[in-house]
Amino acid sequence: MSQANCRDDESGVKLACLLSYDTLTGTGHCAALPRRAFDQISTNRVFPREFNVNQATATLPTIEDIRAAAKRIAPEVHRTPILTSRYFNERLGASLFFKCENFQRIGAFKIRGGLNAIRSLSDEEKSRGVVTHSSGNHAQAISLASAICGIKATIVMPTNAPQVKKNAVRDYGGEIVECEPNEAARVSTAQKIIDETGATLVHSYNDPRIIAGQGTSALELLDDLETPPDIVMTPVGGGGLLSGTSISVKSLSPRTMVVAGEPAAADDAKRSLEAGKIIPVENPNTIADGLKTSLGTLTFAAISQNVSQIITCTEQSIIDTMKLVWERMKIIVEPSSAVPLAALLEGNLDVRGKSVAIIFSGGNVDLNELPWQKPKQLLPASST
Amino acid sequence: MSQANCRDDESGVKLACLLSYDTLTGTGHCAALPRRAFDQISTNRVFPREFNVNQATATLPTIEDIRAAAKRIAPEVHRTPILTSRYFNERLGASLFFKCENFQRIGAFKIRGGLNAIRSLSDEEKSRGVVTHSSGNHAQAISLASAICGIKATIVMPTNAPQVKKNAVRDYGGEIVECEPNEAARVSTAQKIIDETGATLVHSYNDPRIIAGQGTSALELLDDLETPPDIVMTPVGGGGLLSGTSISVKSLSPRTMVVAGEPAAADDAKRSLEAGKIIPVENPNTIADGLKTSLGTLTFAAISQNVSQIITCTEQSIIDTMKLVWERMKIIVEPSSAVPLAALLEGNLDVRGKSVAIIFSGGNVDLNELPWQKPKQLLPASST
Repeated sequence: MSQANCRDDESGVKLACLLSYDTLTGTGHCAALPRRAFDQISTNRVFPREFNVNQATATLPTIEDIRAAAKRIAPEVHRTPILTSRYFNERLGASLFFKCENFQRIGAFKIRGGLNAIRSLSDEEKSRGVVTHSSGNHAQAISLASAICGIKATIVMPTNAPQVKKNAVRDYGGEIVECEPNEAARVSTAQKIIDETGATLVHSYNDPRIIAGQGTSALELLDDLETPPDIVMTPVGGGGLLSGTSISVKSLSPRTMVVAGEPAAADDAKRSLEAGKIIPVENPNTIADGLKTSLGTLTFAAISQNVSQIITCTEQSIIDTMKLVWERMKIIVEPSSAVPLAALLEGNLDVRGKSVAIIFSGGNVDLNELPWQKPKQLLPASST
Repeated sequence: MSQANCRDDESGVKLACLLSYDTLTGTGHCAALPRRAFDQISTNRVFPREFNVNQATATLPTIEDIRAAAKRIAPEVHRTPILTSRYFNERLGASLFFKCENFQRIGAFKIRGGLNAIRSLSDEEKSRGVVTHSSGNHAQAISLASAICGIKATIVMPTNAPQVKKNAVRDYGGEIVECEPNEAARVSTAQKIIDETGATLVHSYNDPRIIAGQGTSALELLDDLETPPDIVMTPVGGGGLLSGTSISVKSLSPRTMVVAGEPAAADDAKRSLEAGKIIPVENPNTIADGLKTSLGTLTFAAISQNVSQIITCTEQSIIDTMKLVWERMKIIVEPSSAVPLAALLEGNLDVRGKSVAIIFSGGNVDLNELPWQKPKQLLPASST
């Protein structure tokens, strides 16, 4: 068993230790770190708005569910490192910690939720396989997780999904069923497969097993940092990562604020949080293609309870920030990953003197077509 | 003081510990690692060829010089992490360890040698400043190292050097003096500055202080790995990194082979090693712009003694490998960094079942102009 090894020095690269998940059993703390209140569940849940979240809350995962998920997925999932950047610290006058899920298997955090969901199925359910509709990282996550568990995965993808994404799903062993490129066709095609085969639907975010899996990244984050940060940030699309993160963070460090970053061009989560009800997004036009979905009932409940604020950024700022991360940190992040940092660099939250941990959600980018090389008229409207 | 923390697990990301250099003092080993023969100097130096390297050898740095360099530069230089990649391990049937100098300050290993050279000057020398001629990473290294030490740096750069490189030098505080874009003009311009100001010339590789500084990366590498690898690889241009690495490796682990990767289009080091004398390169046309220089007397001597083999790769394979590293490891490496791995992927050295550590030398790339996006006719000739 390795000991935790964290230094908050001036290095451009702060590294989390590669603790085995064994250290999360038992008393649930790492020998080399000060013992923290791992079992303390947040009691400061707030229900400030009209929407009645009680029913959804009943099925939200708890910190125990997230810990169980961490054990369930540990053998196949990477404990991703935490990096720091002198440049961004100086730009913002803050101490930033980047949890690098772009280094995760399939290149994004989604394998955490996908594998947890599939490992949670009964043997009987497993024998009938799983189905999902996605053209993004979740499709790859379900394909790989199914391959790991030796079960069949059917992925419903729109006919116009990029060939590179179809290839990635097939490489991991998923079977693709194509449908017309609209939400109704996706849902009905998936339902048809379920009716015919008895396969289990694994939704990409509005599922407690998915949320619990996505929450394991923040569990590692808080375990690997010597001191819980003042703020933890993730991007928000459907809200799976944000929900899981918020449950982990508010359970382990109630004083830490959870803040999300969202493209201004797809700010449905921000508007939903402000209105106290889910306001679905309509045809959002953002380069952050992982963040185009609307919140679900579960994710809305978790976010309403735990998230302090959602801050937005322009399309141009997503592109500029993504490029800056590549140039300054020498790591590849996808547009969605850059959103929280972009919102900070726009000055939309005062973080001076604060410690801020940001989850870089993924790094899957088509290297032949980089956003800063596209003519501006081809970029989403708000980018100019 | 942190303890070493290395695991050779299936993770996509193997992380070196962030040991402070304090641990390299005294008995010179890390408490958490098995004690190794840190003080054993290689005795298997070979002088197999006609070239008399004895005189040059007399001024080559020793492992003690490299340890002293490590202490000298530690406060400002990053201890870079070691990453692994499941994908490349499977492709080659080997265990690969990538020492990421692309995460180093200025984005390349060159700051190690530059800072060591400048910190080694007398106060009197420092007061007269330093001069170098370079249009690459060494120019940035000398500029930053001089700024750190509060001394004046003059960088001789050809008039046709890219604006982005000039800007980087100026950002670090270096003063640029332009010259005609040829070797004679570079040398005479630098000499003129030396004559006028008494500044000290800091050559980019043929200088024992530079070689000692570059050797500190391999010192960390061997310190952070649980077991010394079977093979250590670097790219070779002028040979500063390879020389320093070879001295560290053969001193600390005589059984470890040191192998270099070189572009076939600029294979002067390979030909020099085979001929037993320095064969200068003439107008090499390679995308690996850090590897266009010829060996110097000192680097030739170190390489002749310590390096087992130099293997080459085509231009297309440099580009393909660089892109693969970006896609699979989600990190940014420059063409020169990709050369050793490219030569392995071409099958030019059988590494099956072996452990191979490769130093990724740097990550400075113009993100607006990626090599795989250029029309083939604009690439160096051997790439098609």
